[in-house]
Amino acid sequence: MGKKLNLLMFSGEYDKAMAGLILANAARDIDVEVTMFFAFWGLFLIRDPETMTLEDKTIYEKIMDVVTPKGPEHLPLSRMNFSGLGRMMLEEMIEDQGAPKLIHFLKGARKKNIKFYACKLSVEIMGFKPEELLPEVEIIEASAYLKDALESDMQLFI
Amino acid sequence: MGKKLNLLMFSGEYDKAMAGLILANAARDIDVEVTMFFAFWGLFLIRDPETMTLEDKTIYEKIMDVVTPKGPEHLPLSRMNFSGLGRMMLEEMIEDQGAPKLIHFLKGARKKNIKFYACKLSVEIMGFKPEELLPEVEIIEASAYLKDALESDMQLFI
Amino acid sequence: MGKKLNLLMFSGEYDKAMAGLILANAARDIDVEVTMFFAFWGLFLIRDPETMTLEDKTIYEKIMDVVTPKGPEHLPLSRMNFSGLGRMMLEEMIEDQGAPKLIHFLKGARKKNIKFYACKLSVEIMGFKPEELLPEVEIIEASAYLKDALESDMQLFI
Repeated sequence: MGKKLNLLMFSGEYDKAMAGLILANAARDIDVEVTMFFAFWGLFLIRDPETMTLEDKTIYEKIMDVVTPKGPEHLPLSRMNFSGLGRMMLEEMIEDQGAPKLIHFLKGARKKNIKFYACKLSVEIMGFKPEELLPEVEIIEASAYLKDALESDMQLFI
Repeated sequence: MGKKLNLLMFSGEYDKAMAGLILANAARDIDVEVTMFFAFWGLFLIRDPETMTLEDKTIYEKIMDVVTPKGPEHLPLSRMNFSGLGRMMLEEMIEDQGAPKLIHFLKGARKKNIKFYACKLSVEIMGFKPEELLPEVEIIEASAYLKDALESDMQLFI
Repeated sequence: MGKKLNLLMFSGEYDKAMAGLILANAARDIDVEVTMFFAFWGLFLIRDPETMTLEDKTIYEKIMDVVTPKGPEHLPLSRMNFSGLGRMMLEEMIEDQGAPKLIHFLKGARKKNIKFYACKLSVEIMGFKPEELLPEVEIIEASAYLKDALESDMQLFI
């Protein structure tokens, strides 16, 4: 149908990441073009757990690495996280339904030709090295995001 | 004016529910068509307090029922909730202004020919029975939401 | 390019305010028209720290004034705020990059011909006097926001 969906992934919480990725996957399945722009906490969703490093980082960047989630499966819930207990419970409930988990929706999105962008300013402030992100992620400025979003049929801030 | 508004109600917090319902009501008052799609925590806004049940539910689904709000008036604030004290204070401030409370905006929305949808996957994961939701709610898949949203003039993720 | 961006600033948290203001500034730099509509917690971003007052306020309105942030630089983070420690750390990381702080993005937005609106109902409920807001802020109803948003090419709820 030639439509285009643009998602700004800001929050980096398990449930909101899930919502964004479910929409992204569902959109691809009905042939809608999808762009995901990851900013601030959203970057934690596209860090590559294999290539994280503490080298060449300031003390604040190191603290940030240590206190933040080590991969998509460790993101907290936006509500009722209860130190991760809530997230574990939700994961069990998802499994009970035979529904895919966050990591599967992310894997799906990566295979479905969805464009992954990271916010340049956020990457710099967080002190992430480009090689710490998933290899297909392209780092762009806010203005490039805006141009893409303004040409889309639908934009959400998640 | 033939315009169309689509709201994805994800958060299920008192203040955000209020924001969504105020916009939905205001939109109907200027003849804008409105769709509300409730997902995840947003489902707590459209549960029917009369028909909640613990029967035929797994242990996780029962815990979910017990620890979550029992109706719109019991939703927490997204900020400064202070175990409900903040919400009660906000409700007093609303009353002081003679403004309608959340429950009135919800009642208004239900009378104003707004389409209420619930996310199928969320309903399944949360373990809600269809009869636990308000009777006018229709359960649909993410792809059906997307088609409706892509045809709208404006979409918000709340 | 004659495009128009409409941002509903609801959350009033440091990081989300930053996201909204970065987008608003970037949009102006590529000649996109920008409207920002501040509601609920978002109002804390456009209070004038010089003109705050406790006079003629109810007890709830006074409590609200006392427990809420005294200016943009005092907004909390939406995550990992740790009583303000997280926000201070983020500010240091921003400074390390030579990037502008929230207050600079707000100052930029105020100079760049961005339309600032405040939600009438929110202002009344919070008990703010019009003179407590930045002088260029215009107070409008939800329906006026909707009309503007529906005519825009892109709308976000932040």
